Amino acid sequence: MSVTYAQGFSAAGVNAGISAKPDKKDLALVVNDGPLDAVAGVFTPNRFRAAPVRWTSASVADGHAKAVVLNSGGANACTGQAGYEQSSATAKAAAQLLGADANDIAVCSTGLIGELLPLKQILAGVQAAYGTLAAEDQAGVDASLAIMTTDTTPKTFTAQGTGYRIGGMVKGSGMIAPQLATMLCVITTDAVVSPGQLQAALGVAADRSFNRIDVDGCMSTNDTVLLMASGASQVEPDPKEFNDLVAQACASLARQIIGDAEGASHDVRITVFGAKSEDEALTCARAIAASNLLKCAIYGNDPNWGRVVSSLGTVPPERAVYDADEVDVAINGIKVCDGGKPGRDRSEVDMTPREVHIDVDLHAGGEQATVWTDDLTNDYVHINADYES
Amino acid sequence: MSVTYAQGFSAAGVNAGISAKPDKKDLALVVNDGPLDAVAGVFTPNRFRAAPVRWTSASVADGHAKAVVLNSGGANACTGQAGYEQSSATAKAAAQLLGADANDIAVCSTGLIGELLPLKQILAGVQAAYGTLAAEDQAGVDASLAIMTTDTTPKTFTAQGTGYRIGGMVKGSGMIAPQLATMLCVITTDAVVSPGQLQAALGVAADRSFNRIDVDGCMSTNDTVLLMASGASQVEPDPKEFNDLVAQACASLARQIIGDAEGASHDVRITVFGAKSEDEALTCARAIAASNLLKCAIYGNDPNWGRVVSSLGTVPPERAVYDADEVDVAINGIKVCDGGKPGRDRSEVDMTPREVHIDVDLHAGGEQATVWTDDLTNDYVHINADYES
Repeated sequence: MSVTYAQGFSAAGVNAGISAKPDKKDLALVVNDGPLDAVAGVFTPNRFRAAPVRWTSASVADGHAKAVVLNSGGANACTGQAGYEQSSATAKAAAQLLGADANDIAVCSTGLIGELLPLKQILAGVQAAYGTLAAEDQAGVDASLAIMTTDTTPKTFTAQGTGYRIGGMVKGSGMIAPQLATMLCVITTDAVVSPGQLQAALGVAADRSFNRIDVDGCMSTNDTVLLMASGASQVEPDPKEFNDLVAQACASLARQIIGDAEGASHDVRITVFGAKSEDEALTCARAIAASNLLKCAIYGNDPNWGRVVSSLGTVPPERAVYDADEVDVAINGIKVCDGGKPGRDRSEVDMTPREVHIDVDLHAGGEQATVWTDDLTNDYVHINADYES
Repeated sequence: MSVTYAQGFSAAGVNAGISAKPDKKDLALVVNDGPLDAVAGVFTPNRFRAAPVRWTSASVADGHAKAVVLNSGGANACTGQAGYEQSSATAKAAAQLLGADANDIAVCSTGLIGELLPLKQILAGVQAAYGTLAAEDQAGVDASLAIMTTDTTPKTFTAQGTGYRIGGMVKGSGMIAPQLATMLCVITTDAVVSPGQLQAALGVAADRSFNRIDVDGCMSTNDTVLLMASGASQVEPDPKEFNDLVAQACASLARQIIGDAEGASHDVRITVFGAKSEDEALTCARAIAASNLLKCAIYGNDPNWGRVVSSLGTVPPERAVYDADEVDVAINGIKVCDGGKPGRDRSEVDMTPREVHIDVDLHAGGEQATVWTDDLTNDYVHINADYES
């Protein structure tokens, strides 16, 4: 399913010999067969933006893209002018095959930072992917497999609007932090929408999804989310319905990243209620989600609410209004901290479910925000100690 | 040695049955026998300040303290008014024995957040400690043993000024983040100094030591550093020499925390050079020190400089001026990133020493700052998944 669920898109995923894993698909091509070629993108704010991010943010700025080439096995980040020329050469190769302008080809890369790509393999891979382009479900699945790195499962989304469809794929399981918490994501639709509508829908949706998950507080150099519209359904969607579906797509794909986070054994939902503003609630939720100590405790099935409040307590008063003596904390529905003091006994909390829900009430207002994170496990350390070798 | 190295101080460390470990010393008493009773303190800025921090910050605010009672085995944090009354009762018990005012007794606690202390054991422990007070070296060592929690070794300091002495002890190995990166620290001197001089010396010294180490980005509710002067040497120190020695004491004790950080296998020194200001250098160094991915890579002896620059790249331009294409990164002396691009081959880096030195040059100015951190290991996860149970 994935990106080919929407009409007017073809895709491919091939083994181009880029990744160190010998049999892994590592290059994907997603082509917008039109009639429209509308696109919107959001990109990492990291100051060491990878070459493909610099290329693609420029190429989609005019709201038009014919296709996107994505590779795993190398991030092409911190590679200077030579790296930029590799992204440019990749776009040119795809453009030539597709009869398009190179500036209408987006390029995304993911993998190790600080090394150039094996360009020969990339270019041969583009050729091979072009040769196997198809609009079938399997082609979309192949593309979603080709962008995986430490992901253990492909992550896709499909949904139906009134007369139109939305599909999507994402990869990402580490180096996941707010702003922008994904690695690579492509969402497609056959609705008839303008680049401006796409950008508006994507901006809001990404802010409430990819920007609200945090695996490890580490922001990537390569994060890219693209939303492409073919118009093939010939349906102009109701704007609210369309925005909601794009939001659903981003939320689902972000949630799948949390569910497949490196080494995680618990998915942790942190909701801060009773804040003066949504922004203050979000600041508090992010501070809690960033606590390694809390994340280790959750791995140990320990409802250690002291680590919730000690993290909350690091938020300076000018960033969030609350009185420490008013704060409640519930873990999986048991209010273990009541007005800044011990509440019900922590032994009442059942920590066995995969999902752990931490609900914090500041009693300072009527706004709230939710952030998702994971526990910190031996497997996370193992995966990230050995990733390069 | 430790706190009794300076003349005019007696100390004790006893097993009061507070800690879950049956044979562990868990209550320390440090008494200033005068003639002076000057004191200065710095405290956690965490908004969930523990009861003993609230008690002690108020009691030392006048610059005078006769003694400090410290316990491991319980933090007495998030315990409301009942917790505050426990700190007060502890101070009163010590005051009565010492013929002092309760407001001249500081109280420090460390351990699990969210539970009241076993007050009966605390009060009996104060009595027992009072009964074994001594000015000998071993008494200071006993006190440093009594404040340990997950520490694997006591951490002490001694130094000689011109005619006077400084001694100190600290505990801390997790929940260590800038502002204020320690748990409990007591430094003593027999120099003749005023409370104002003590506070000035301690403020600067703590800012450049305890505020520049980061084990896990987690700020405690109980952090307290006290500097006490007895005047027993009858020597008024040269202010510069005295300030330097206090700075040395804090730097040494902070460095010992890093060396004993939970589960660590590498101590990591991160220095950012070439910044426009010291503050900008510090912001960048802290961003790098906070990266779980980098800390896992170091555990795996992987000189993964991509994780250095991707962390650096999260610092917003308004917080630190630099051009990503100018940044150099050296790991253990090998410049692996040169002007934002690959430099010497990462295989040249020897990652076997316990100390790992990461030197980042922003090429944006003449200022620099150093932060110490540790690698992130399976043992850290193990210790903190199981700490409560």
